[in-house]
Amino acid sequence: MAENPTKIILDSDPGHDDAMAILLALGNPKIELLGVTTVGGNQSLDKVTYNARAVLEAAHATDIPVHAGADRPLVRPLKVAAAVHGDTGLDGVELPEPARPLDPGHAVNWIIDTIMNAEPKTITLVPTGPLTNIALAVRMEPRIVDRVKEVVLMGGGYHVGNCSPVAEFNVATDPEAAHIVFNESWPITMVGLDLTHQALCTPEVQSRIDAIGTDLSKFASGLMDFFREAYKNNQDFVDPPVHDPCTVAYLIDHAVVATRRCPVDVEIHGALTTGMTVADLRGPEPSAEECHTQVAVKLDFDGFWNLIIDAIKTIG
Amino acid sequence: MAENPTKIILDSDPGHDDAMAILLALGNPKIELLGVTTVGGNQSLDKVTYNARAVLEAAHATDIPVHAGADRPLVRPLKVAAAVHGDTGLDGVELPEPARPLDPGHAVNWIIDTIMNAEPKTITLVPTGPLTNIALAVRMEPRIVDRVKEVVLMGGGYHVGNCSPVAEFNVATDPEAAHIVFNESWPITMVGLDLTHQALCTPEVQSRIDAIGTDLSKFASGLMDFFREAYKNNQDFVDPPVHDPCTVAYLIDHAVVATRRCPVDVEIHGALTTGMTVADLRGPEPSAEECHTQVAVKLDFDGFWNLIIDAIKTIG
Amino acid sequence: MAENPTKIILDSDPGHDDAMAILLALGNPKIELLGVTTVGGNQSLDKVTYNARAVLEAAHATDIPVHAGADRPLVRPLKVAAAVHGDTGLDGVELPEPARPLDPGHAVNWIIDTIMNAEPKTITLVPTGPLTNIALAVRMEPRIVDRVKEVVLMGGGYHVGNCSPVAEFNVATDPEAAHIVFNESWPITMVGLDLTHQALCTPEVQSRIDAIGTDLSKFASGLMDFFREAYKNNQDFVDPPVHDPCTVAYLIDHAVVATRRCPVDVEIHGALTTGMTVADLRGPEPSAEECHTQVAVKLDFDGFWNLIIDAIKTIG
Amino acid sequence: MAENPTKIILDSDPGHDDAMAILLALGNPKIELLGVTTVGGNQSLDKVTYNARAVLEAAHATDIPVHAGADRPLVRPLKVAAAVHGDTGLDGVELPEPARPLDPGHAVNWIIDTIMNAEPKTITLVPTGPLTNIALAVRMEPRIVDRVKEVVLMGGGYHVGNCSPVAEFNVATDPEAAHIVFNESWPITMVGLDLTHQALCTPEVQSRIDAIGTDLSKFASGLMDFFREAYKNNQDFVDPPVHDPCTVAYLIDHAVVATRRCPVDVEIHGALTTGMTVADLRGPEPSAEECHTQVAVKLDFDGFWNLIIDAIKTIG
Repeated sequence: MAENPTKIILDSDPGHDDAMAILLALGNPKIELLGVTTVGGNQSLDKVTYNARAVLEAAHATDIPVHAGADRPLVRPLKVAAAVHGDTGLDGVELPEPARPLDPGHAVNWIIDTIMNAEPKTITLVPTGPLTNIALAVRMEPRIVDRVKEVVLMGGGYHVGNCSPVAEFNVATDPEAAHIVFNESWPITMVGLDLTHQALCTPEVQSRIDAIGTDLSKFASGLMDFFREAYKNNQDFVDPPVHDPCTVAYLIDHAVVATRRCPVDVEIHGALTTGMTVADLRGPEPSAEECHTQVAVKLDFDGFWNLIIDAIKTIG
Repeated sequence: MAENPTKIILDSDPGHDDAMAILLALGNPKIELLGVTTVGGNQSLDKVTYNARAVLEAAHATDIPVHAGADRPLVRPLKVAAAVHGDTGLDGVELPEPARPLDPGHAVNWIIDTIMNAEPKTITLVPTGPLTNIALAVRMEPRIVDRVKEVVLMGGGYHVGNCSPVAEFNVATDPEAAHIVFNESWPITMVGLDLTHQALCTPEVQSRIDAIGTDLSKFASGLMDFFREAYKNNQDFVDPPVHDPCTVAYLIDHAVVATRRCPVDVEIHGALTTGMTVADLRGPEPSAEECHTQVAVKLDFDGFWNLIIDAIKTIG
Repeated sequence: MAENPTKIILDSDPGHDDAMAILLALGNPKIELLGVTTVGGNQSLDKVTYNARAVLEAAHATDIPVHAGADRPLVRPLKVAAAVHGDTGLDGVELPEPARPLDPGHAVNWIIDTIMNAEPKTITLVPTGPLTNIALAVRMEPRIVDRVKEVVLMGGGYHVGNCSPVAEFNVATDPEAAHIVFNESWPITMVGLDLTHQALCTPEVQSRIDAIGTDLSKFASGLMDFFREAYKNNQDFVDPPVHDPCTVAYLIDHAVVATRRCPVDVEIHGALTTGMTVADLRGPEPSAEECHTQVAVKLDFDGFWNLIIDAIKTIG
Repeated sequence: MAENPTKIILDSDPGHDDAMAILLALGNPKIELLGVTTVGGNQSLDKVTYNARAVLEAAHATDIPVHAGADRPLVRPLKVAAAVHGDTGLDGVELPEPARPLDPGHAVNWIIDTIMNAEPKTITLVPTGPLTNIALAVRMEPRIVDRVKEVVLMGGGYHVGNCSPVAEFNVATDPEAAHIVFNESWPITMVGLDLTHQALCTPEVQSRIDAIGTDLSKFASGLMDFFREAYKNNQDFVDPPVHDPCTVAYLIDHAVVATRRCPVDVEIHGALTTGMTVADLRGPEPSAEECHTQVAVKLDFDGFWNLIIDAIKTIG
């Protein structure tokens, strides 16, 4: 391999689309998944942690460390997304019993230690759940801000909400954590609903997944079946948007996810807007020197799903 | 004329684009301008009231009553938009001395009396400034909510701000007033920045205005000259967006301004989002029975400017 | 009479203690009651307006004008205090049918006209309900700020709340209106719960009222019977605090209500504190030149009740 | 000793009064100081951490572990109290060079490990600075809530503020952290400004400290000299209030600090009230079963200073 793969820590709350992000990270040679950390969000911490281990088991990736993190948001109570992800957080498939035990040590300490012990600017944080763990890590060890390479997160939306007219679930679940993360100076790519609502698992896409014909493709397809029903019933979608792997797809190939640089901050005091990622899209696009945040705007639909399908095939 | 013209009260703070709204209302036979009321906004109440009278003078419409209203927002201090409208509020042209004196009586009382003395559902309110007067009127006389035909206002934006990343000047200037107006049950059409940023006075448009060759067309063109410079210097626009007459254009011909029905509320407590018009665009479009608010989405550019140019010609 | 009486406008929402304020204003020669204006608060506008007229009828004061004002707070919905004042707003007594009709004209316009037509600095505003009317008046006619003598209001509390741990009913009902009123430069005396919780109608006091032996004293005592039960059941008081007449008592004799000068503002954005009157009691007491607001701190209990009882006797 | 001493972790930001808290904890046999943890507050984390070590050095207590914690509040920027504590955070005395190095490991992890490794309900947390570390600890390891014996903190005030009319420095510095701590179910005693403004270091008190005649008493007296000037110049106090040791005094002898049980929550969204500890003092005092929070109300002045002076003597 000519190029070194991108080392990532996936901080997630699986979750159907988190599971797809794990599969994409495992199955693409340009990504090296250092570990999965978990956070209460789509479901309770216990459930999403189990799910993370089970997904790794299903993908034969039992060497990937899994560390459990925060079980609830910093300030507000946790409201899980059972309507979208079911009672287990991964309803719709039979989960394999994970052989490997949960790793000891808190996710936040593991994130800090992994970053501080690595070469500077070599590790990318990929949060796909509420940002509680990342916020705790940066308050426990502020030096990680300069040590990570970048943060590529699924969350928010500059024109679209799902929890509310203008707020997305991950940010709305822990808006104070998101406020903390967006106000640190690290490079942030926000892959929000504006982008991920383009990542629809159409019947055509799903039939391509089915055609792979492995246990893992059946697993992925079962996840999509449930997700389709959940989005139809809850958010009036014909096809479900598969949010979380868009972050990994961006890291694999920037051409798959076009971005626009703009300031982004998080509202934490609004009556109608708390959890909104407020993007300033006025005026000309600033440079990377002027602005450490960018938002994902346009998905290469075919390119994205090719990456997913290749990854499922590669894992086998 | 086969059809009765639409009777409107224009509540405004002229302002270059307010002036264009007055001209369109005066020069189109489908509109009957019952009166102009004024509110502190683009400039101080005294200045915008003088400007309203001067614009009517320039348009030979000295029979239109002008009543002055609130000199400041309900709760927050007034911050005028001198950068956009100049020190007079109508910088860039020489204003004719208005012959007719200001009418006695507060704008709010005149609005209430005019509505309560007219046939129900015959008068349309067209606010193009901060909503202070309208909010005061509805709190002074709640029965006007059921008596007016509808409210068609310039303000807000579902995806665009100018005062802040997500707030527009009129709503941001008096967010509590806007909150009051949007939470009453009357039919509201919000003509926000999403729409009005399409109403650009391009050089081609302006040369058509110039070609009319009357004193009034020179007056209008002078306003546009100043507005072009102001928007270039303040908001990075090549051509200035002529916001306020879009409301009147919608009333003249719905085909010129396409709308979408959706719930709209106003944020009054946010740290980053106060003054935002929060529109819920999720899911299918509700019916008029389900939802009393709609937002303007698409301008017929040529249709719009044809109306403006015809009006200037008609006035003579 | 050596001294001119203090001319007051009582803006109220009767209400048991509002009724006592009316009686004190009518029965004391140092007060000239110019009129009663009403506002939705303790009960709906219709009910409190009827109650105001009925109390004046009971006190043989049918020459006092009554004007109805705002039926709800500026921004928030009205929540009446039925638990404290009953379904009619004056439960516990049989109200006399008021002979005189309600005066035409909105309370806010009548307040404005009365102030603007009087000699400057001769009229005192005495609000004992939510401050909606006063806020509307000051936004409709800002010149009243310099024309009134002062504002002496019942509302708020610097250390005590009843609606919430830190907010009092009148201010909490329309915090934006209170914010408007406290932020104008007129002299304000806030007679809050800190003071009015000292104005308890003890059994000894009530037996003195009973001993007067007139129809009016029976009326007053009936009000107190209901109020005692309401405060026992709702707020754990042994004797009911008779809030509103403390304002009038202060105007009759400053010795009855000791005050302390301090800045006061109103919280309108808190999650736990909205409607709180935030008084800054740190440091030395400012002068009247430095600070236009003062708070009532200590009641002369006997002096207060003597005034009330004398007034009831005087009315006859 | 008949009774086991109370094991405490002092989480502090020394700070003149924090230093006095350390001395009281070291010099009283009823307290066992397990360690000192530090947090950015009165001064930067580096300075207060050095100060903690230097105070322990001055008190010959070089066996007490010191762990550094969070360098800033969770959500808001740190504003240190240089006006009150000087540029070093302990201005006014010459600090001894601490011989013992700073202990490795983050304060938050040390707090968690110490609590989780001890017998349940044996360790008391005594925070005397912003509550950032405690909030981080409880989010990192929620089980500490049931494992600690209680939390006795200096901060807040039910009727008194210093940072603002209604907010105290420690809580106002990190209101989100305080919100987290107060909303957990552990027993909390809030020793706020209502209490600590009674703990004045009068000249009589200070002459008793001087009379001890040791290096340590000179150190303490030097701290008080600076503190007196700072409070005179900044907050109009004649004698400085020595806040932080009141927490330890309460633990030594409940008779020295009288308390009242009441619900307490922290405002994090107010425009005027953010950082206020909102105590609900209405109605009868609840039981410990009904209410996990209590506030300190009355100091036994002589008892308190006797404890301080005895401690300084005991340390020698």
